[in-house]
Amino acid sequence: MTQDLKIVLKSTAQEVNQALKTFLPEGLPEILHESMAYSVNAGGKRLRPVLVLWTAELLGGVKEQVMPIACALELLHTYSLIHDDLPCMDDDDLRRGMPTNHKVYGETIALLAGDALLTRAFEVIAKASEAGANPADVLKVVKEVGEAAGSLGMVGGQVVDILSEGKEIDLETLKYIHAHKTGALFRACIRSGAIMSGASTDDLNRLTAFAEDLGLVFQITDDILDVVGDEAKLGKPVGSDQNHAKATYPALVGLERSRKLAEESCQRAKNGLTVYGEKGELFSQLLDYICEREN
Amino acid sequence: MTQDLKIVLKSTAQEVNQALKTFLPEGLPEILHESMAYSVNAGGKRLRPVLVLWTAELLGGVKEQVMPIACALELLHTYSLIHDDLPCMDDDDLRRGMPTNHKVYGETIALLAGDALLTRAFEVIAKASEAGANPADVLKVVKEVGEAAGSLGMVGGQVVDILSEGKEIDLETLKYIHAHKTGALFRACIRSGAIMSGASTDDLNRLTAFAEDLGLVFQITDDILDVVGDEAKLGKPVGSDQNHAKATYPALVGLERSRKLAEESCQRAKNGLTVYGEKGELFSQLLDYICEREN
Repeated sequence: MTQDLKIVLKSTAQEVNQALKTFLPEGLPEILHESMAYSVNAGGKRLRPVLVLWTAELLGGVKEQVMPIACALELLHTYSLIHDDLPCMDDDDLRRGMPTNHKVYGETIALLAGDALLTRAFEVIAKASEAGANPADVLKVVKEVGEAAGSLGMVGGQVVDILSEGKEIDLETLKYIHAHKTGALFRACIRSGAIMSGASTDDLNRLTAFAEDLGLVFQITDDILDVVGDEAKLGKPVGSDQNHAKATYPALVGLERSRKLAEESCQRAKNGLTVYGEKGELFSQLLDYICEREN
Repeated sequence: MTQDLKIVLKSTAQEVNQALKTFLPEGLPEILHESMAYSVNAGGKRLRPVLVLWTAELLGGVKEQVMPIACALELLHTYSLIHDDLPCMDDDDLRRGMPTNHKVYGETIALLAGDALLTRAFEVIAKASEAGANPADVLKVVKEVGEAAGSLGMVGGQVVDILSEGKEIDLETLKYIHAHKTGALFRACIRSGAIMSGASTDDLNRLTAFAEDLGLVFQITDDILDVVGDEAKLGKPVGSDQNHAKATYPALVGLERSRKLAEESCQRAKNGLTVYGEKGELFSQLLDYICEREN
C-alpha cells in the first residue's frame, strides 16, 4: 500500500468511526445497543463507507449529505456479518480475532441486533435528507440499497453459497455467489455515492462498470488468499486439499489464471477512471492494493 | 363484528393480497422466494395494511400511492413473525395452525427469508414514489417505519419480552413491551397513512393518539384472550396458573380492571374520531370488534 493511500484510508476510517457513533441508537434495551455497538466497533478498514465517500468526492458531492449513506452501508454490512456467523449459518466463534456477537451476547440478542442494524441502516439513509440532500435522490438510494441487500442481491448470494456447501459447483455458480454475496453491496456503495452527487447517466454507467470490476478484483484475490493461506498453513499444493469444501477461483480455473483475471479486472477498472484524471488517483491506488494484497 | 365491517375488511384484505403478489420478488434463489411467499401468504386479516389504507381514506390520500406502504408494513410484520418463531426465539412449531417457516424450510432459509422480507419492506416503501407520491413524504415514512421497527421500537420490545420471560414484571415493564413489540408498528401504520395523505399537524397528533389507544385495546384484549383461553382449557381460575410464565394485564391488574381499561381506551379512541364524522365510522366499528373479540 502506498503511503498516500494508507494516510487517506486511515483518516477516512476515522471520520466514518466518528460519524457511526452518532448513528448508533442508545438507551433501553441496553444489552441490545451494546451488542449492536460491539460488532459495529469491531470493524476494520470501513471499505464500504470509503467507496461511498470517495465516489461522492470524485463527482463533487457534499460530504455531510453522503456520510449518513456511507455509515448506513457499514451498519448493513455489520448486520450481514452477525447473521452470517450465527450457529444456523456459518457457526463461527471468531471474527477478526474477536469472539463473534452470539458468542458474547447469545444467539437471541445477536439475531435481534442484526435485525435492528438492518432496520437502522434504512432509517439512517433517510436521515441524509436532514443534511439537505434532495429527497428524490435519497429515495433512489433506499431502492438501490434495498435491491442490493435483498433476496435478489446479498441475501440471495448467501442462500446459494449455503446451498452449494460441500458440493462441486461450476464457475457460473461461483460468479453468481460472488456477484451477489459481496459484489452487490460494493456496487450499491459506489452507485449510492454517485446518485447522491447528482451523477449523469454516463457517470453512473461508468462507475457501475467500475464497481463491478472492483468487486471482481476483491473476490478473486480473496479466493487466492484463501488458497495461498491454506497452502502455507497445510504445506499442501493447491487443489489437493479435499477438506476445502468451498469453491474458489483458484480451485476452478487455477492459481495462475485467477491472478491473471484479477489483474485484467484491475486494469479495466483503472481504465474506467482515466476520464476523472487526478481525482481518480486514490481509487487506482486502492485497486492496486486490493489486487496485490496477498503480498 | 358488524356485517358492514366484515364486508369492507374482507374486500380490503383481498386488495392487499392482490397487491402483495406484485411486491414479492421472484426468480433465483427459488427456495428463498418460496419461503418468503409461504409466510406472507399465510397472513390473516391484514390488519396493518388496513390501518394504513383506512387512515389514508379518512384524510383523502391516493390509494395507489399508499398501497405500497400498506404492503411494506405487512412484509415487515411477516419478517418479525418468522424471526419470532425461530428456535433461538420462541421456538414455535405452528402459527395459525400451519407449520412455522423454519419447520418447512429449515432455520437457515427462515432466517434469511426474514432478512430479505425486512429489506424488501423498505424497498417497497420507496416504490410509492413511482406511483406519484411526494418523495419527501415517502422518506418521512422510511424514517417512521425504521424508528418503529428498530431497537427503540419493535425489536427493543422483543428483547425486553424475552429478557422478562419467567420473571415477575411490573405493569410499567408490561406497558413497555406492549407499546414497543406491537404498539409501535400499529402507530407507524396509522402515522404513515396520514403522512402519505398530507396530514396537518393537528391530524397527525390526533391520529397518533388514536393509534396508541387502538394499540392498547388490541394488547389488553389479546392478554384477556390469553387468560380466558387458558381458563377454558385448563379449568383453573385466573391467576392460579403457575406455568403461565408470561405477564399479562389480567395477571397484573385483574380481569375486571383489564376489561375496564380496554373499554376506556376504546371510548377514548372513538372520541378522537368524532371530528371525522361519518368517515370515521368504519374505524369505530373496528375498535368495537377488537374490544369485544373475546365473545
